[in-house]
Amino acid sequence: MIKASIVSVGNEVLAGKTVDTNAAHLSSELLSIGIPVVSSYVVRDEIDAIVRGLELASADADVVLTTGGLGPTDDDLTRQAFARFLGVELELRDELLERIEKFFAGRNYPMPERNKIQAYIPAGAKALANIGTAPGIMAESKSKIFVALPGVPMEMKQMFEESVLPELKRLASDQAMVVKKLKCFGAGESTIAGMLGTMMRRGRNPLINSTASSGIITLHIIATAEDNETAEQMVMEDEKTLRNTLGELVYGFGDQSLAEVVGEKLALQGKTLAVAESCTGGLLAKLLTDIPGSSKYFTYGWVTYSNQAKSSQLGVPAELIEEHGAVSEQVARAMAAGVRNKAGTDYAIGITGIAGPAGGSEQKPVGTVYIGIDSGNECDIKSCIFSGNRRFIRLRAAQTALNLLRLKLNI
Amino acid sequence: MIKASIVSVGNEVLAGKTVDTNAAHLSSELLSIGIPVVSSYVVRDEIDAIVRGLELASADADVVLTTGGLGPTDDDLTRQAFARFLGVELELRDELLERIEKFFAGRNYPMPERNKIQAYIPAGAKALANIGTAPGIMAESKSKIFVALPGVPMEMKQMFEESVLPELKRLASDQAMVVKKLKCFGAGESTIAGMLGTMMRRGRNPLINSTASSGIITLHIIATAEDNETAEQMVMEDEKTLRNTLGELVYGFGDQSLAEVVGEKLALQGKTLAVAESCTGGLLAKLLTDIPGSSKYFTYGWVTYSNQAKSSQLGVPAELIEEHGAVSEQVARAMAAGVRNKAGTDYAIGITGIAGPAGGSEQKPVGTVYIGIDSGNECDIKSCIFSGNRRFIRLRAAQTALNLLRLKLNI
Repeated sequence: MIKASIVSVGNEVLAGKTVDTNAAHLSSELLSIGIPVVSSYVVRDEIDAIVRGLELASADADVVLTTGGLGPTDDDLTRQAFARFLGVELELRDELLERIEKFFAGRNYPMPERNKIQAYIPAGAKALANIGTAPGIMAESKSKIFVALPGVPMEMKQMFEESVLPELKRLASDQAMVVKKLKCFGAGESTIAGMLGTMMRRGRNPLINSTASSGIITLHIIATAEDNETAEQMVMEDEKTLRNTLGELVYGFGDQSLAEVVGEKLALQGKTLAVAESCTGGLLAKLLTDIPGSSKYFTYGWVTYSNQAKSSQLGVPAELIEEHGAVSEQVARAMAAGVRNKAGTDYAIGITGIAGPAGGSEQKPVGTVYIGIDSGNECDIKSCIFSGNRRFIRLRAAQTALNLLRLKLNI
Repeated sequence: MIKASIVSVGNEVLAGKTVDTNAAHLSSELLSIGIPVVSSYVVRDEIDAIVRGLELASADADVVLTTGGLGPTDDDLTRQAFARFLGVELELRDELLERIEKFFAGRNYPMPERNKIQAYIPAGAKALANIGTAPGIMAESKSKIFVALPGVPMEMKQMFEESVLPELKRLASDQAMVVKKLKCFGAGESTIAGMLGTMMRRGRNPLINSTASSGIITLHIIATAEDNETAEQMVMEDEKTLRNTLGELVYGFGDQSLAEVVGEKLALQGKTLAVAESCTGGLLAKLLTDIPGSSKYFTYGWVTYSNQAKSSQLGVPAELIEEHGAVSEQVARAMAAGVRNKAGTDYAIGITGIAGPAGGSEQKPVGTVYIGIDSGNECDIKSCIFSGNRRFIRLRAAQTALNLLRLKLNI
């Protein structure tokens, strides 16, 4: 079996200034195509240290990925370390230089002289395209693969997905392997593991494992077989069992987000949506509009952060707020009704809650959130108490609202 | 100078199921007492792998800290690895066993037999108290210090602070180190490096280095001196020079976000803000309301994703949209004016643009964004063309809007 090792380059990781989310992301992506990460190293941004990291990692694994150290400053030494480790010189690639110059021209900046270094790649290696200025590097040496990715998470993720993952998939496929991800929301990782029981045991084929991130549980079904067709068949059967067992907890597959699935359903049914947010402060609208083409079904959003805004914009009666409090079932209902009325949409969501850290009381602690889903005929209300910090409470509130609408659109 | 190295034990870190926040926390804590972490290793929960991690780490550093692998299950092997590495046996400590039995008695559980292993410590080593069941380990060997901490972040942090930090402070106090971060927005990492020139050269004291994330450039000033006062003084002088050189590019310090700095200025000046968003779709409101207490100055937000919403909610004349297009300087100006009018705030921001991937034209390519900042007397308009994916364009548009308001509030 092919194994991988990760080398994270950079003093900022060692100084604890950055949490190394890159290594976690890569590990989880690699595992999803059946490549386990067997070790991981964090090294200083010094050529010697990076070379030593490459040596240690290549002793452990067949694929070595580095992140960081591809920027234009004197601290960015991964390029040089790759060249030394591979025993080759850095060479200037004209097409890369052109691309970097274009990048700056597009921003109406002249290219700073120091960015020229980013057009250098170890001789014989392949340059990987980047949305930023720094190209990545892919090289082969002694039957092992070495990849240098940028440290900026957004750039790293895109480059890995577009340029590295397809190559590695091909490598991992001396045996046919088919992977499918099912996305779940509404129960914790251990609850889902309990529901699946022995299906998740180690060594089973297909292998089923789970990862959790911000409330979304991703189940990976990894089937290995002699040929692709058999593996596909095995995945399909397991998917059926998982969907039967987990029911509505499964909201989608692949990399689908809740907002994407909700958007698809709305578009398919020709329905529209508007939202009114208090504690989530725009986050729900942001998640909905993350999806390209969301303007088809999402037209209006209100962030009514103050009581006055709730009354003047959405027609929530001041007396209602007075009587029950701005964070109440009644106000969530009135916000949803108000926004549906005003926007003339098929569905409307109203959210009000206490994201903290201040503002909680004994009766309504921080984390109390009311969500109203108005569909014209009726308004469903969900009251929740989330525990966690401000960021977590806001995210979970927005996700729960999306999930409620998803379940409504299933009918 | 004393140096440290970290070994993180556990398959869940390698599988990407857990982001290794422990290593980041320890690194930052150690740096704050002047002990740099020079390397970090993640190893599988196998005795051989842990011993090898200890060997690698002790070759790099004077202090080696491990996290994880102290639980009661068969996967928890750090204790055994420490004993093997130190060349001693594990021995049962009665006082530890008693404490663990008490821990369970206090919870009205009988102690599971498997937890007994947690009362074993390598001979000659010191046991460190834990709020959970697993004691930590501290041992000296060949003039180096080895510490085993639990993997549960809360337990790890408390044990490190109470039992390890005081010991290490005593060791490290021959040199003082002071670190300060300056946050910049408005120019790229290489442009800023160019402006600072030799101030960023390696080996300089204070050392100045930079990291970039989502358009925010963070400059770290790290001064080392005989005593704290001298180091503080050195940082202060460099900070002054940096602020003089970079001017308004510096927006804050520490971990401040743009939204936080804008919020502080608004609160301090007793001003209020409302926003109207098209292409950013709620992201700007979300960034503003990420900050606790933002309801003091941020009251209203509109997500007017459709032309109709722009007209009906903000009073943008339909003819204006017809004539210039929804993505135009004129509409950004009308959105800002409309929202200020409607919300009665001191400032208002209007954003309209094309986040892509679809919707671009030759004249207005994807990434075209117009931002209007209305302050009553005047409306400043900024037109930008951002390149990158949808997520990047939206984020950069929202950040640029916040930065424009920040500069306006500086006057």
